[in-house]
Amino acid sequence: MSNPVLVEVRRGNLVESRHRGMVIAVDAGGRQVFALGDVGSAVFPRSACKAMQALPLVESGAADAYGFGAKALALACSSHSGEPEHVALAAEMLAAASRDVRALECGAHWSSDQATLIQQVRALEKPNALYNNCSGKHAGFICACCHSGTEPAGYVGYDHPIQREIRGVMADLTGAVLGRDNCGIDGCSIPTYAVPIKGLAHGFARMATGVGLGATRARASKRLIDACMVEPFYVAGTRRACTRLMKTAPGRIFAKTGAEGVFCAAIPEKGIGIALKCEDGSTRAAEAMVAATLARFFADEPEVHAALMAQANRPLRNWNGMHVGEVRLSAAFAA
Amino acid sequence: MSNPVLVEVRRGNLVESRHRGMVIAVDAGGRQVFALGDVGSAVFPRSACKAMQALPLVESGAADAYGFGAKALALACSSHSGEPEHVALAAEMLAAASRDVRALECGAHWSSDQATLIQQVRALEKPNALYNNCSGKHAGFICACCHSGTEPAGYVGYDHPIQREIRGVMADLTGAVLGRDNCGIDGCSIPTYAVPIKGLAHGFARMATGVGLGATRARASKRLIDACMVEPFYVAGTRRACTRLMKTAPGRIFAKTGAEGVFCAAIPEKGIGIALKCEDGSTRAAEAMVAATLARFFADEPEVHAALMAQANRPLRNWNGMHVGEVRLSAAFAA
Repeated sequence: MSNPVLVEVRRGNLVESRHRGMVIAVDAGGRQVFALGDVGSAVFPRSACKAMQALPLVESGAADAYGFGAKALALACSSHSGEPEHVALAAEMLAAASRDVRALECGAHWSSDQATLIQQVRALEKPNALYNNCSGKHAGFICACCHSGTEPAGYVGYDHPIQREIRGVMADLTGAVLGRDNCGIDGCSIPTYAVPIKGLAHGFARMATGVGLGATRARASKRLIDACMVEPFYVAGTRRACTRLMKTAPGRIFAKTGAEGVFCAAIPEKGIGIALKCEDGSTRAAEAMVAATLARFFADEPEVHAALMAQANRPLRNWNGMHVGEVRLSAAFAA
Repeated sequence: MSNPVLVEVRRGNLVESRHRGMVIAVDAGGRQVFALGDVGSAVFPRSACKAMQALPLVESGAADAYGFGAKALALACSSHSGEPEHVALAAEMLAAASRDVRALECGAHWSSDQATLIQQVRALEKPNALYNNCSGKHAGFICACCHSGTEPAGYVGYDHPIQREIRGVMADLTGAVLGRDNCGIDGCSIPTYAVPIKGLAHGFARMATGVGLGATRARASKRLIDACMVEPFYVAGTRRACTRLMKTAPGRIFAKTGAEGVFCAAIPEKGIGIALKCEDGSTRAAEAMVAATLARFFADEPEVHAALMAQANRPLRNWNGMHVGEVRLSAAFAA
């Protein structure tokens, strides 16, 4: 099926660009409570499932053994901007396991946030792997390995024990079959598995509520989701959508982006999990879609609702600061 | 109608993201020779029509009066990366009319090319308007005004004489009606008009051949198109698609991108004009579409064809340089 246009980019009085996509929200029992588009299709969650990938770090006892608090757990679930606090904390996590930047296998890149990039360029000759947006996740993998006595080297590989464990965790949470057939390599070199977005949403509803999970997994899930909601700066950074969304209703919204227009989210108190993808991979559209989907569940709280909708429908300004258009929900989404 | 998927982004063995769009190629008589998608729909050409907007500079005699060669004319048609040569030449153009950076009304921004941005950040506190990708076009406007005795101040406004003149030029070339109803404000603050892509393609076929144009307009059009093809670095810059496309078959391909997934192109020797838009505004997809559309007209030249197709179907690598997927034409496009 063809996905509907969910977000429009307007200039003057006309629609300039259109973004299609699929969105689903489910309850902890897996019942669909809201859906648009082809929600049966499988998508690579990319970084949107980092909280799932961080479960071995907590379930193994490594996080406790290394004394990780909410900031470190949030960083393990993050796609951070490489701001000084992120980089320092990733180094601290590795140091707790007597490792350093040389253990990271994620590659290096400058920040995706331009203002942060400018600061980096003025302070550094070039970034190392601690600056990679995934360095917290990778530090978490390395710490989980070290704590359990597994050699971390090669931890990005499909057959490494930590990736096998993550495969099991994700299959449990999403109900999907994960294997070579639906596997791709992510930007940071670890495996990523295409999963139906309904399964992703259900997985986050279960992480946020513990429904249907064993006691250890339920406890570890709550701890990670709570850590992200308490320390949203460590999940993304200044000016970033994940951080802004979670600050909109502190302690009540979990949200995590992934490359190529993916977003996962949860509202623990309402037992809701959300997953979506913009068909064309656009971040601007995925950010609008997740804000609007979250807003549907805060209809009875005008301030939260308005703050979320302001992240869904937003003005576009040009280099002179003139208002030239808007990113806004399509009629199909707004209905 | 729904536009077809023309470009796919693959990861592993799966399609991760999909880009829809509309493409048309016409001959100088306006006959459609290739088309995909809703080619009757109007799009904002944005920067893709800069060569049209530069016609008053040449037709008025200003370019000759100020001694502008191919580099300056190419810069007047450019969305440049703000590399030192671009910035210096924009300043020279203004100086020829006894003006300077203070006359520019385009706003300032850092380069959109990361490697250039890094050089800028290390050399500058902040960029001025000469670094704006449109500074060459704006310098051209200012020079056209100064030569004709028109006060340039306010030249970005809908009712300024230079914008009125450009409106007339674009209506003549595209056959479209341009007015307040289909007008938006561009990133650099000048008016941009939504035009059917068939009209845009026909306009570039006419500029590239002179067919159906008065002698002055035909001569000025040829001079601008030739300047861009002779000096492609000044139309965009290092690592940029327009520059690379024009270097693929020197002197034989004209190509110019616009924001939000637009591309216009021409093959003068074949009398072909091309216009396209990726529905979602994606640059990566528009670049693939224009390369593949151009390639269709070089089927009998295997080297040129292959070099263009290598720009349409290209590998994606991650931060470690691993091959993780491809941008490639859909079956619908390749057919």
